[in-house]
Amino acid sequence: MNFLEEKILMDGTIKQGNLLKIDNFLNHQIDINIMRQIANEIKHRFQDVEVNKVLTIEASGIAIATMVGCLFDVPIVFAKKGESAIVSEDKYESLAYSFTHKKINYVFVSKPYLQATDKVLIVDDFLADGQASLALIDIVHQAGAQLSGIGIAVEKGWQKGGNILREMGVRLESIAIVEEMDWETQSIRFRNQPKCKLYRSC
Amino acid sequence: MNFLEEKILMDGTIKQGNLLKIDNFLNHQIDINIMRQIANEIKHRFQDVEVNKVLTIEASGIAIATMVGCLFDVPIVFAKKGESAIVSEDKYESLAYSFTHKKINYVFVSKPYLQATDKVLIVDDFLADGQASLALIDIVHQAGAQLSGIGIAVEKGWQKGGNILREMGVRLESIAIVEEMDWETQSIRFRNQPKCKLYRSC
Repeated sequence: MNFLEEKILMDGTIKQGNLLKIDNFLNHQIDINIMRQIANEIKHRFQDVEVNKVLTIEASGIAIATMVGCLFDVPIVFAKKGESAIVSEDKYESLAYSFTHKKINYVFVSKPYLQATDKVLIVDDFLADGQASLALIDIVHQAGAQLSGIGIAVEKGWQKGGNILREMGVRLESIAIVEEMDWETQSIRFRNQPKCKLYRSC
Repeated sequence: MNFLEEKILMDGTIKQGNLLKIDNFLNHQIDINIMRQIANEIKHRFQDVEVNKVLTIEASGIAIATMVGCLFDVPIVFAKKGESAIVSEDKYESLAYSFTHKKINYVFVSKPYLQATDKVLIVDDFLADGQASLALIDIVHQAGAQLSGIGIAVEKGWQKGGNILREMGVRLESIAIVEEMDWETQSIRFRNQPKCKLYRSC
C-alpha cells in the first residue's frame, strides 16, 4: 500500500452516496507533505518522457500542477472554466460536464500558452468520469501539441474515466485507484489491495 | 525596481479599460521561476511573524499559496466559491463581489480547517478592491484565528483595497504596486518608481 492509499485510510471519510471526502489534505486544506510526495511520485512515473509544460484545470488541480511544474522546472498552464472579461477571444475551447457541480463547464486555454512544440503532462487531483481530462486532451490536440501523459492523485476505478483514457492509448498514472467503497461499513478497496476499513483497520 | 516589476514591464500588456494582463506568467500560464521568487519574497517579508497556515481563495491564488505553504512548511487552505454537493454545512461563510466576473461570490471554508490556534497568512495574486481579502479576514475572525498578514503579488494601488487594509492595521505586503497605467501609451508607474513604457523602455 503506497503513501497516498495509507493517507486516504487514515484521514479520508466516505460520505453517503459513496463520495470520498479527502478535502482535509488534498483539495480544500492541503497537507504540504502529501502534496510533495504526490508531485515526486508523478515526476518519478514520468521520468522517461519529455515534458515541457504541465496542464491542469482550475481550481483544485492547480496545487498539484504547481508542485509538479516546479519539479520538472517547466511552465504550468491551468485551463479556466466559464467566461472572463479579461481573457481574449484567441483561445482553445472545450466542454466538460461536472458531476460534482451538475453543470457543463466551458473550458478554455489562451492560444499563446499551448504551442505545437509542447510536450504536455496533464495532472489533476481526481479522475472520475474523465470529462475534465478529455476536455484537456481535446485542447492539447487543438494546439497540435503532444500529450506526454496524465498524472492523477486519486482515480475512482469504478467510474469510466480510467478505462476510456487507457483504451485511447493515453499513458495514465494514478497514484491511488479506489476500486470500491462502502459508506455503511466505511470500508474501501484500492486496486490490487485487500479491502480495508478506514482509520487503518485492514 | 524589483524582479516582479521588471517582469511586468517585460511581459505584461495593458488592455483597453486599464486592465493589466499578466496571465502569461501569473494566473493562466505560470512562470515557475517567477512564482518561486514571489514565494521566496513573501516568505522573506513575513520571516518575523508566526505562520502555521496559509489561506487563499480559489482559483488563481492557489499556485502562490502552494509555493508559500511549501516554504513555511505549513498546511494551505483555499477558500471555495459557490456551492458544492460535497462540502458539509459546517463552514465559515462570507461574501465577496468580483469586479472581474461582475458577480457576488459566496466564499467558504470548512470549519475544521481553520482553528482558533491558527496564525494565518493570507496570500493572493492580485489585490484590487480588497473584496476577496476582506472576505478571507472575516473568515479568519469567525474562526477566532490570528491574522499574521497578507502577502500579495500585484496590488492595483489606485484601487481602494490596499488603503482599506492598511487603515485596518493589517500588515500588508505587496511585491509590485501599480500606481497608474495608461492603455494608449502602454505605460505604467509602480509606487516609488518612475513611469515606464512596457517592454522595458523606461
